Amino acid sequence: MLMNNEAAGKIPEFADILTACQRINEEIRTTPVLSDPQFNSMLGCELWLKCENLQHTGAFKFRGASNAIAVLDENDITGDVATHSSGNHGAALALAASTHHRRSWIVMPEDSVKTKIEAVRRNGGEIIFCPPTQRDREKGLAELVAKGCIAIPPYDHVDIICGQGTAVVELSEQCPGLDIVLTPVGGGGLISGSAIAARALIRGVRVIGAEPKGAADTALSLSQGKRVDQYPVDTIADGLRAIVGVLNFEIIRNTVNRVITVSEAGIVDAMALVWKHFRMLIEPSSATVIAAILESPEDFSGSRVGAIISGGNVDLECLPFK
Amino acid sequence: MLMNNEAAGKIPEFADILTACQRINEEIRTTPVLSDPQFNSMLGCELWLKCENLQHTGAFKFRGASNAIAVLDENDITGDVATHSSGNHGAALALAASTHHRRSWIVMPEDSVKTKIEAVRRNGGEIIFCPPTQRDREKGLAELVAKGCIAIPPYDHVDIICGQGTAVVELSEQCPGLDIVLTPVGGGGLISGSAIAARALIRGVRVIGAEPKGAADTALSLSQGKRVDQYPVDTIADGLRAIVGVLNFEIIRNTVNRVITVSEAGIVDAMALVWKHFRMLIEPSSATVIAAILESPEDFSGSRVGAIISGGNVDLECLPFK
Repeated sequence: MLMNNEAAGKIPEFADILTACQRINEEIRTTPVLSDPQFNSMLGCELWLKCENLQHTGAFKFRGASNAIAVLDENDITGDVATHSSGNHGAALALAASTHHRRSWIVMPEDSVKTKIEAVRRNGGEIIFCPPTQRDREKGLAELVAKGCIAIPPYDHVDIICGQGTAVVELSEQCPGLDIVLTPVGGGGLISGSAIAARALIRGVRVIGAEPKGAADTALSLSQGKRVDQYPVDTIADGLRAIVGVLNFEIIRNTVNRVITVSEAGIVDAMALVWKHFRMLIEPSSATVIAAILESPEDFSGSRVGAIISGGNVDLECLPFK
Repeated sequence: MLMNNEAAGKIPEFADILTACQRINEEIRTTPVLSDPQFNSMLGCELWLKCENLQHTGAFKFRGASNAIAVLDENDITGDVATHSSGNHGAALALAASTHHRRSWIVMPEDSVKTKIEAVRRNGGEIIFCPPTQRDREKGLAELVAKGCIAIPPYDHVDIICGQGTAVVELSEQCPGLDIVLTPVGGGGLISGSAIAARALIRGVRVIGAEPKGAADTALSLSQGKRVDQYPVDTIADGLRAIVGVLNFEIIRNTVNRVITVSEAGIVDAMALVWKHFRMLIEPSSATVIAAILESPEDFSGSRVGAIISGGNVDLECLPFK
């Protein structure tokens, strides 16, 4: 069974994101927003980190998963839920499902980060491992759906996009007058929800995405004017290896000013800098936003920037910096 | 020169802490307060973490240092400042001094955590290393004072205590109706300021300290009815190795309900649990508060507990857990 299939392809409006805010308000954390004068001097802009690494399950993904499950409840759709995920959406869906008294089944690539595997299990999710390709992930999920599970896709769905967009509703209240909203780009759930919210709430805002060069399918899709559905993925940013979603690409194309691609070295430097200046360990996917400022400073110079730190689920024993 | 020597021995009143709040309000971060339902179920109480690990310089110490330097400014006392510190007070003083356009000199034990040494330097402090004993630390500081520096003690001073107490003013607003305020105990600056603020602001509150068994000079002092000035220190909690201050002990004796001593294994388990449930790396000193709940659950059962996570300055290459 596919979840709310008739609505899945709908491009959300800002009102849908506000409804999501009300729906998930009691379940999610209002995550803090941090800035550091020394770090700002170094970067040449006024940077505010929206710390979704401190969200329940350690990532923004809990927003979308909570919203999607709450919508099922509202529509009296019962049954187990399932998804494919490199980890953060999986753990988020597992917790959201547990909270709403449902079982959850998570198809995970067998090379997933250990921390993320543990988090899925801890939050009550059942894991089904698969080879680490998009095709195998989708095949695994299709088998679960054939058995009667409700698929909750990780990004390419209106309810997920709306849930993720709630982070920017909070951010715009916590940090008025932003010039730029900056988020990582993977499947595109976060940036598409963020862009819709930012455009509605912040006058004259620029919305910028950060994507690893080793998973730059969105930047390539934008430059070609149509969504690519394959890319030779090679990046440390395990949360950004998915191909941009159909709905997500439509939204990005219409509402995002630019997607900046960043190097692997830049990602690692950025992780180390955030640890040094904020005492937070963030996962490589999150660090892309800092890498974008480091590697493309002219896009941010003198601006007030709100950047979403998407998650903090990193294995301590294989940190890429010391 | 000793700082405001006539005032140093004064026991602060709550009004002094409120004045400190106004004084440092623009410089410090209002740190977030986090709770996790799963973790609460495990602990058997409702625990709120006041995240001073996310304070500037990664520790609550910046509150006291900022207050002390602002008081110097108010009194037109010019000159370099100096202190002895295993690290967090040193980095805090260095940043507070830089912010107020002063030079700072920090006497540090030569076995200090590398992260903390770097933080002192990054924030503009000059380091003077000494052997890792209380006597050598004090001797190093005395030499600086003889050269004309203004000593800003790490905990045994009214302005420091008042600055640290501002954390509980915030906590009581962020998290009304606490049954217990829980903090680590080292030199006693944090717990004494916290206790004065908690007693004034929270009706019927219990104030509990957590101290490593390997640095349990405060618990021993309480049981003997007088302050001990030596203790065979052996603990991973590098921030809690100092002997409780004179003024601090007076306050603790009169306002703190209990000091719970915790094991080294408990501290390490607590660090790992906070990483697992909150995606925050906290330093061993901070983890004592969680260890106290784990090892003395009957003191906390069913209570609403506000615990101060004192700092996040830990060396990644020597984490005591994986």
